[in-house]
Amino acid sequence: MPRLITLTTDFGTRDAFVGVMKGVILRLNPDAILVDITHDIAPQNVAHAAFVLASAVPYFPPNTIHLVVVDPGVGSARRALAAQVGETFFVAPDNGVLSLVLPPSSSVIHLTNPAYWLPRVSTTFHGRDIFAPVAAHLSLGVPLAALGTPIDDWVQLPQTRATRHGDIITGRVVYIDRFGNALTNIGEELLEGLERARLVVRVGAQTLHGIHTTYTDVAPGDALALVSSTFHIEIAVREGNAAQTLGIHIGDEVRIESAIC
Amino acid sequence: MPRLITLTTDFGTRDAFVGVMKGVILRLNPDAILVDITHDIAPQNVAHAAFVLASAVPYFPPNTIHLVVVDPGVGSARRALAAQVGETFFVAPDNGVLSLVLPPSSSVIHLTNPAYWLPRVSTTFHGRDIFAPVAAHLSLGVPLAALGTPIDDWVQLPQTRATRHGDIITGRVVYIDRFGNALTNIGEELLEGLERARLVVRVGAQTLHGIHTTYTDVAPGDALALVSSTFHIEIAVREGNAAQTLGIHIGDEVRIESAIC
Amino acid sequence: MPRLITLTTDFGTRDAFVGVMKGVILRLNPDAILVDITHDIAPQNVAHAAFVLASAVPYFPPNTIHLVVVDPGVGSARRALAAQVGETFFVAPDNGVLSLVLPPSSSVIHLTNPAYWLPRVSTTFHGRDIFAPVAAHLSLGVPLAALGTPIDDWVQLPQTRATRHGDIITGRVVYIDRFGNALTNIGEELLEGLERARLVVRVGAQTLHGIHTTYTDVAPGDALALVSSTFHIEIAVREGNAAQTLGIHIGDEVRIESAIC
Repeated sequence: MPRLITLTTDFGTRDAFVGVMKGVILRLNPDAILVDITHDIAPQNVAHAAFVLASAVPYFPPNTIHLVVVDPGVGSARRALAAQVGETFFVAPDNGVLSLVLPPSSSVIHLTNPAYWLPRVSTTFHGRDIFAPVAAHLSLGVPLAALGTPIDDWVQLPQTRATRHGDIITGRVVYIDRFGNALTNIGEELLEGLERARLVVRVGAQTLHGIHTTYTDVAPGDALALVSSTFHIEIAVREGNAAQTLGIHIGDEVRIESAIC
Repeated sequence: MPRLITLTTDFGTRDAFVGVMKGVILRLNPDAILVDITHDIAPQNVAHAAFVLASAVPYFPPNTIHLVVVDPGVGSARRALAAQVGETFFVAPDNGVLSLVLPPSSSVIHLTNPAYWLPRVSTTFHGRDIFAPVAAHLSLGVPLAALGTPIDDWVQLPQTRATRHGDIITGRVVYIDRFGNALTNIGEELLEGLERARLVVRVGAQTLHGIHTTYTDVAPGDALALVSSTFHIEIAVREGNAAQTLGIHIGDEVRIESAIC
Repeated sequence: MPRLITLTTDFGTRDAFVGVMKGVILRLNPDAILVDITHDIAPQNVAHAAFVLASAVPYFPPNTIHLVVVDPGVGSARRALAAQVGETFFVAPDNGVLSLVLPPSSSVIHLTNPAYWLPRVSTTFHGRDIFAPVAAHLSLGVPLAALGTPIDDWVQLPQTRATRHGDIITGRVVYIDRFGNALTNIGEELLEGLERARLVVRVGAQTLHGIHTTYTDVAPGDALALVSSTFHIEIAVREGNAAQTLGIHIGDEVRIESAIC
């Protein structure tokens, strides 16, 4: 039985929202084990939440329930979902936040059975009234199918893929982390057969030389491109903030090619 | 026996204060289950803490101990308290932070028995030296009465109530959340018999038309008044920050009346 | 067997880093109990982490594992460590972050046994790939010695000590907390034999009179020197922010002497 429930929200930590959701879960299942992934998703930023969730999910044990509440459409006709992928469960609004973790073959349920919600459902806090109690009931062994109606048309965020034509690779910055490191959607495998030391990486007006192995390959304060912990190309400044120093933003184009020399 | 202990403080999360309190509790009761409500109460803001606590408490299971340390008077003559309301326990300084959760008939104890404190009590960190160990001892089954002396003159914060005279309702902004939503003290029940679509809500120089059901009733970026998740009137901007955009502050008067037309 | 694992990092809370580490631990040991000390260490600030860790450790129960990941040298030749002091365990990079908690006689192991790491080790996220799994294995009863090779030359941060010559005490500001209180390295015991009310404390251009007992000894907004909760001299402003108001920074000299009068 899944006892571990993770929480990913944009609620921040200065209000009662997160505490309320935890109270709702623990009242239904005092044996649930709650783990915060983050409550500091940028407000109503579904893409940010989708990225963080996809980064964390592979490291959790089977039988984990991931509860995600980033919900700009709360109160509208957007659906509420529960889903199962292998032995991992998700509970979230149907706004694309699960785009990076739900393969096409997933079992996805539109939450339509109010027997597993709080008795009074507000129009502004479904995290408390629908998502948290549904996660708690899943952790008590309620089968997914009891929660509502199967669907196969859940919302998918558009995903841009990096491409390689000959020796030229083009991608985008998809995430900037707390340290200001800029993560791209260019997977390490796209570099196959290229000589890493001779590549140049261009982003905005910047040109970086070589694909490095680790931050300490350059001097403190220097910029570099390297392979990230998720095995994608990352642009960083050693012991500094690359996004600020180099003026990099999410969505910026990144181009990798061989140096002419 | 209560095993669940929640923590609400203004300690922030960059210092050791919270970890120290958790260590003190777990050393006394390794089976305690700790749940953070928030550590981001505005420094020494007792009213903020009182509001957040009152929002969260109703959703927690019976036999929960709520530990609250927002304590501008630490080291002075202000008393330390433990209290019981039904099956819910509180441990907090006597500065009004429990105002919204303690009904007049509550059992309240002035903590005077040092047997349940750390051996050496500092003058600046009673969270560590008094409140955390008292919460741990409660979770081990120590009866409330053993902790000190019953009192009935605990500090209450003044509470302003919203009023209705005929069709005119007057209240105040009592809280602004992380999203910039402005929560008022005007309960939904004060609207009884009024036609919501024809009401106007005035706050500062702003006039909002109608009491809406949910954020998505208006276009992104537009302001609206609606019923909050706590069933009070709230002023919001869809996918935006109402407090910043509309210049709303805690304490601002809010007036609701029927539109003349 | 140690089940309690604390986490101290500079990862912040808006990315997936912390969730990933918790997933890694719980996948290896679902019965581990995780307690956050803080994830808000200033980025790559080893001294900040060392101070916070040393403040929290004494309050935790025996058989606690403290996992610390503040790691500017990740990917370089800096070593990874596990250590035991009495019944307390540490897992951290060898960059001085354990300076304040490891006495000279500690058992310290250089982590060289990849059997206790994730199968694929990145060059940028040893928190996930080495430190978290090692902490999990320790919590499962793996003996320290199995993790690698004993060493005795681990990195120590230089520590400046406060000094007393006659009636003149000289020290430094070593920490500024969330409230803006400035903590010095001057232990209360250095004041022995001096009349506290007649001492003056000088820091920058400021002169404060007397060593007080608690914040409420002065009026709100007034500055004072007092004995901190860790029993060192602290400079504070009652219900205010001393570091901002008085312009105090970490490293500033603090001088205490008897007033001439």
